[in-house]
Amino acid sequence: METTVKNKQVILRNYVKGIPKESDLMIVTASDIMEIKVKPGSGAILVKNLYLSCDPYIGIFMREPTPSTSALWDAFVPGKPIAGFGVSKVITSDNPGFAKGDFVWGIVDWEEYSTINATGSFFKIDININVPLTYYIGILGMPGLTAYAGFFEICSPKTGETMFVSAASGAVGQLVGQFAKLMGCYVVGSAGSKQKVDILLNKFGFNDAFNYKEEPDLDTALKRCFPKGIDIYFDNVGGKMLDAVLLNMRTSGRISVCGMISQYHLETRDLVQNLPDIIFKRIRMQGFATYDFIDQYPKFLEFVLPYIKEDKLTYVEDIVEGLENCPGAVVGLLHGKNVGKQVVKVAQE
Amino acid sequence: METTVKNKQVILRNYVKGIPKESDLMIVTASDIMEIKVKPGSGAILVKNLYLSCDPYIGIFMREPTPSTSALWDAFVPGKPIAGFGVSKVITSDNPGFAKGDFVWGIVDWEEYSTINATGSFFKIDININVPLTYYIGILGMPGLTAYAGFFEICSPKTGETMFVSAASGAVGQLVGQFAKLMGCYVVGSAGSKQKVDILLNKFGFNDAFNYKEEPDLDTALKRCFPKGIDIYFDNVGGKMLDAVLLNMRTSGRISVCGMISQYHLETRDLVQNLPDIIFKRIRMQGFATYDFIDQYPKFLEFVLPYIKEDKLTYVEDIVEGLENCPGAVVGLLHGKNVGKQVVKVAQE
Repeated sequence: METTVKNKQVILRNYVKGIPKESDLMIVTASDIMEIKVKPGSGAILVKNLYLSCDPYIGIFMREPTPSTSALWDAFVPGKPIAGFGVSKVITSDNPGFAKGDFVWGIVDWEEYSTINATGSFFKIDININVPLTYYIGILGMPGLTAYAGFFEICSPKTGETMFVSAASGAVGQLVGQFAKLMGCYVVGSAGSKQKVDILLNKFGFNDAFNYKEEPDLDTALKRCFPKGIDIYFDNVGGKMLDAVLLNMRTSGRISVCGMISQYHLETRDLVQNLPDIIFKRIRMQGFATYDFIDQYPKFLEFVLPYIKEDKLTYVEDIVEGLENCPGAVVGLLHGKNVGKQVVKVAQE
Repeated sequence: METTVKNKQVILRNYVKGIPKESDLMIVTASDIMEIKVKPGSGAILVKNLYLSCDPYIGIFMREPTPSTSALWDAFVPGKPIAGFGVSKVITSDNPGFAKGDFVWGIVDWEEYSTINATGSFFKIDININVPLTYYIGILGMPGLTAYAGFFEICSPKTGETMFVSAASGAVGQLVGQFAKLMGCYVVGSAGSKQKVDILLNKFGFNDAFNYKEEPDLDTALKRCFPKGIDIYFDNVGGKMLDAVLLNMRTSGRISVCGMISQYHLETRDLVQNLPDIIFKRIRMQGFATYDFIDQYPKFLEFVLPYIKEDKLTYVEDIVEGLENCPGAVVGLLHGKNVGKQVVKVAQE
């Protein structure tokens, strides 16, 4: 085991305008040598990062912060590493809660090794739960809790209701759809390729699905899939899709606003014409942030683990290898190139 | 007392495109003579309409119906009278619940005399409550219940929160602002003239107010009035104002969507750029229809009557006289010419 390393990091070059490009991020090997130790009495841990989670919000925080985006989270800092959820292994610990060899998940800088001073928001992984470690940045991590809280808390679903989810094969969408099926909803999803639509229908058991890129008119597509309208919309994309959905919502419908990935990087955002439908149909439209529901994580695990064990939930991941592939993975995600949850494997377990 | 009359009605000429004009409505004296009697055994009542209520939704239902608007209420029928809330006097009754001379309020066609077969949705007015009869299409009628349910049920207000209401001197807005003051909120309103702004500040006791027509930039106006942001927005107008408000909402803010009067009659609606703020600030935005809260009417009266008696609530009305002035009153309302609740007095009590 080395006692020193040269840490490699994924650095934000400058605040991004327009949609992020690979060149907005750079892989830098730190010039300072990092010692594999933590300060005695600090309570810190030093971890080796194994898996990093690519999520749409990373694109938001690569942009210059505004009061709006700062209300959600702090923007990244040019010249510093970007950050996100990761699964890591404890290399050395000054904290009685963590031992060398423990696996943990939480927010880490995108780098090979991280010193974690604020361990309070890190979860220790129970390896007796026999699932891939990547699940802790997917179905058992933030995306899982997002789908759980965003669907069950925000959508107030009832058996027999119709549910539509966009970006339906993504990290969150695939779970929302499966949760809704478990609830007895009629579930339709949209995605951006034939391959993804096939997965929705054949792997996740959606009732129907369509490729939004091949639909000349989204309103027509939604009317075909929902002749009687939509009770629940789980929005991951915003913009034109939201506009078409509003027209097809039923009275007393609910829209859980999880993301608007189609809108964050536009100079001029899409014209959403149908906002008055919020009144006509008495729609509740609600945004949420998963960290507001973090106290529900144990309840979520209790709910989700039996389904995983019984093979009643499945989770598709898209794993690329190597820290140097982080920029491509982030940009690919923003263009919908991933199939399932986008993960970067940084190091061997 | 006459035994027959020639009934005068306000007829929709054709479905309206663009913003309604006075010529879209016509005053017609029915060619058939109407007998002042109701069919024995019918349970019907025949009423003389005294006051008619001009509300923004009338403009919506003068347009060709769409599945969206039909989810709220049926559109008017070209060649037939338009309809809305009215205060009326019972002229003759075949219904044991109503006696000749009773005052009632409910939805009537816009005409001098109406035969009401479905009396179930009519409220008998208790004349011992010593208030102007017009109050039953205002503070004690649909606008009052709208303000009550839309503010207390949809906005979940807390003492000390900041509250913004648009169209703040209107039938609903003036009450929302006063209810919010009673709750201990910091209240700001927008309106379309200096006179209206003066009323907000000096008659209703708003903390601040502005004339949106004289503000070069709505975002700047809102930042001036709410340096720390808005907890609650009661939206009566939609469009550009909603867009500016979204930018100024605080985390966990609530938007009660009562109306979007600025948007109903546009060919292309305003570009609302800040919908992603719904996520960033975890905003709940909810449309509602007052008739969904009709069971709360007795509770609402219990709440509001003491304040009226103690002069802690005031209500400004704009009353024009004569059925022939209905088209002008409706169109004036849609252009914001009214100061306070727009009422048409059709006949003497």
